[in-house]
Amino acid sequence: MEKENRSRQVLSRIATNDQHGENSPYFHGWYAYERNRFHPTQNPQGVVQMGLAENQLCFDLVEKWIKENPNASICTREGANKFKEIAIFQDYHGLKEFTHAVAKFMEKVRGNRVTFDPDRIVMSGGATGANETIIFCLADPGDAFLVPSPYYPAFGRDLRWRTGVQIAPVDCHSSNGFRLTRAAVEVAYKKAQESNINVKGLILTNPSNPLGTTLDMETLKSLVAFVTEENIHLICDEIYSATVFSSQRFISVAEVIQELEHCNRDLIHIIYSLSKDLGFPGFRVGIVYSYNDIVVSSARKMSSFGLVSSQTQHFLTSLLSDEEFVDNFLSESKKRLAKRHHDFTTGLEQVGISCLKGSNSGLFFWMDLGPLLKEQTFEAELKLWRVIVDDVRLNVSPGSSFHGLEPGWFRVCFANVDDQTAEVALERIRTFVLDNGKKGDEGR
Amino acid sequence: MEKENRSRQVLSRIATNDQHGENSPYFHGWYAYERNRFHPTQNPQGVVQMGLAENQLCFDLVEKWIKENPNASICTREGANKFKEIAIFQDYHGLKEFTHAVAKFMEKVRGNRVTFDPDRIVMSGGATGANETIIFCLADPGDAFLVPSPYYPAFGRDLRWRTGVQIAPVDCHSSNGFRLTRAAVEVAYKKAQESNINVKGLILTNPSNPLGTTLDMETLKSLVAFVTEENIHLICDEIYSATVFSSQRFISVAEVIQELEHCNRDLIHIIYSLSKDLGFPGFRVGIVYSYNDIVVSSARKMSSFGLVSSQTQHFLTSLLSDEEFVDNFLSESKKRLAKRHHDFTTGLEQVGISCLKGSNSGLFFWMDLGPLLKEQTFEAELKLWRVIVDDVRLNVSPGSSFHGLEPGWFRVCFANVDDQTAEVALERIRTFVLDNGKKGDEGR
Repeated sequence: MEKENRSRQVLSRIATNDQHGENSPYFHGWYAYERNRFHPTQNPQGVVQMGLAENQLCFDLVEKWIKENPNASICTREGANKFKEIAIFQDYHGLKEFTHAVAKFMEKVRGNRVTFDPDRIVMSGGATGANETIIFCLADPGDAFLVPSPYYPAFGRDLRWRTGVQIAPVDCHSSNGFRLTRAAVEVAYKKAQESNINVKGLILTNPSNPLGTTLDMETLKSLVAFVTEENIHLICDEIYSATVFSSQRFISVAEVIQELEHCNRDLIHIIYSLSKDLGFPGFRVGIVYSYNDIVVSSARKMSSFGLVSSQTQHFLTSLLSDEEFVDNFLSESKKRLAKRHHDFTTGLEQVGISCLKGSNSGLFFWMDLGPLLKEQTFEAELKLWRVIVDDVRLNVSPGSSFHGLEPGWFRVCFANVDDQTAEVALERIRTFVLDNGKKGDEGR
Repeated sequence: MEKENRSRQVLSRIATNDQHGENSPYFHGWYAYERNRFHPTQNPQGVVQMGLAENQLCFDLVEKWIKENPNASICTREGANKFKEIAIFQDYHGLKEFTHAVAKFMEKVRGNRVTFDPDRIVMSGGATGANETIIFCLADPGDAFLVPSPYYPAFGRDLRWRTGVQIAPVDCHSSNGFRLTRAAVEVAYKKAQESNINVKGLILTNPSNPLGTTLDMETLKSLVAFVTEENIHLICDEIYSATVFSSQRFISVAEVIQELEHCNRDLIHIIYSLSKDLGFPGFRVGIVYSYNDIVVSSARKMSSFGLVSSQTQHFLTSLLSDEEFVDNFLSESKKRLAKRHHDFTTGLEQVGISCLKGSNSGLFFWMDLGPLLKEQTFEAELKLWRVIVDDVRLNVSPGSSFHGLEPGWFRVCFANVDDQTAEVALERIRTFVLDNGKKGDEGR
């Protein structure tokens, strides 16, 4: 009886399983930073946070805009007369002006080569919520999605935890620069089928997190053809689309399906967010954009669980509707990201550390510390990571937390610190690499 | 092959089942209002919205406060220097000042007779998100929760849709004023057990939606004793706690468990929100407050799917930290709600329509139109409702949409219109009742 009572008190399987994935160096590194934050004068020996993909390089532009636009907010003297109207707004379609402004912004980010229907813009709580929403719409517990590895550590939480859906990795290798190919997808698909796993779709992050690379038109076409042939879904996570800073432009799946004659649009879904491209993760703007009417309708009903604050919708509508501001922000942001990326990667090259070639986007680069590993194992990678966090005092993220297959790679976020801190961080890695090399020499 | 392909293209069971519950007169009435909104001068023949529980009576106080506090927002000239710091904030614990301010506000609403630990305040996307979160934490698909009926129409969506959990109604009747008793709960519990349903807990909405009544100390104690004995969870949805406008004060479960010697706190959870008590549903502030450590930790991980916008957290922190403002707002809000409730219910009494006695809270009353029904069936109730929406042009909500057991009751929201519109609405019902009575007389 006593035992029965205890067992009945038990919480849900979700609350008590470990599928959330929080127990990862990816998150542990954040705590290391939280415990001992770097500050140039107050704590110059602290940990520099390079484990968080934040876009902090253009806040001066936003701050200036706010000061010039007091009507943009319902919490100013000038805007307070709209407070009631906005504070009570809870329609899960979102403010009409907001969905229009977001659609237009998404078009602009894609060079106005595609159009987005504001009626297909569905709100969710950040990309986190958007990812979970699309899975809840497409798959049942036990179903699987193909996900190229290395992939975002929190996909376990977003895609799997509460939905009960599985992740079936598509293996990518350094031998071809971690490029995704249809052949690799087919291998993973067949493997899953052989294990009687019901694969419901393929998830692409384009630009890739953690690689900082984009998919080319040819690859995208081959993957759209694949999902069309196999009649499975294609979810394109394009939350870093405005961070493509090289001359090579970003190609959205929206552009690809425009060019294709044979394509079942009911299978195509885009995940978007303003957390990375604008740099406002705190505002929790996630977007599900689906070409499938039932998914739009179903995801919209789900948006009741993660609507964007109407205060935030209102403010962002004003900001994004200022086309001059948006154009300037987008071009300035790319310039600053390109410079920061260049400074870091060339600074590392000078001490013999290479980063993934062809990296042209994202708020991070994929750094190869393989030569510093004592042995080519994930244990050695984790050991090296501990030294980097504890002694070098940089929170970078080990490749194993991204479910990479080859030890020695690290994701380094470069856009969440100011210039001065970036210099400190770069110097710390360079010094570490040089010292480590020397020790290695001495040992010989 | 063709058939197999089609079946594989199918979306999830969640996206394609009808468990969301949107197909209800409760929601249909909203659309009737949306299509033909009342406006005193521009559309005086339009539909008056009395189907939405909004608290619009004190926005003048908020607007005034905003004008006097330009530092409260990050989107003002005075506050813009904090924009970056807030826009990048995405810790799922929430801004420390925010959780402190919310805990303090919750205490104030409960007359400072209880204390709340800010570390147990977990954010969710509105009460909608908070309700779903607590279910995801406590129960597995197929498990059930006891819910006294009549209950909130959207509980189907919140508690059941994506979680796969069932609602087991506890029948309440007009014979004792719809009062909830331990005996009624026990009947429902036994019935569920006899059907081999695993009951994981009891959900109380206190104050009740749609009844507008509160639970007394004795009843609450008996129900806490019941869940303790049966070792099942107790979820107290207290989102209307600041709307108790009568002299009889609100008693939170937090106060009850303080007084009880034998109570397993691990089973007690509170759902809160700022949508009703403050009147800001658009801001999507939902709170899970649990006395169970594992639930706090698990719900917090889930809050990644429905965090409150940091812009909104920041603004509300400023507003709620102004104790003078909060005290005045709470007392003024109660006064205005009491007056509006009194005007409506006495105005209806004068034409022979009674509302549930003992109603002392909420943003609605429970109106008995049983005497106007042609027969005592839900078909007749729905027919009468159609006439009220289409001809009287008032969107009230029929009791059947609240899963009531007795036809003829309607929920009437009284706090989402201004004084002038309230008068129009009252006159429309009164005229309808009088005309209907006359017709009835003529027919005799």
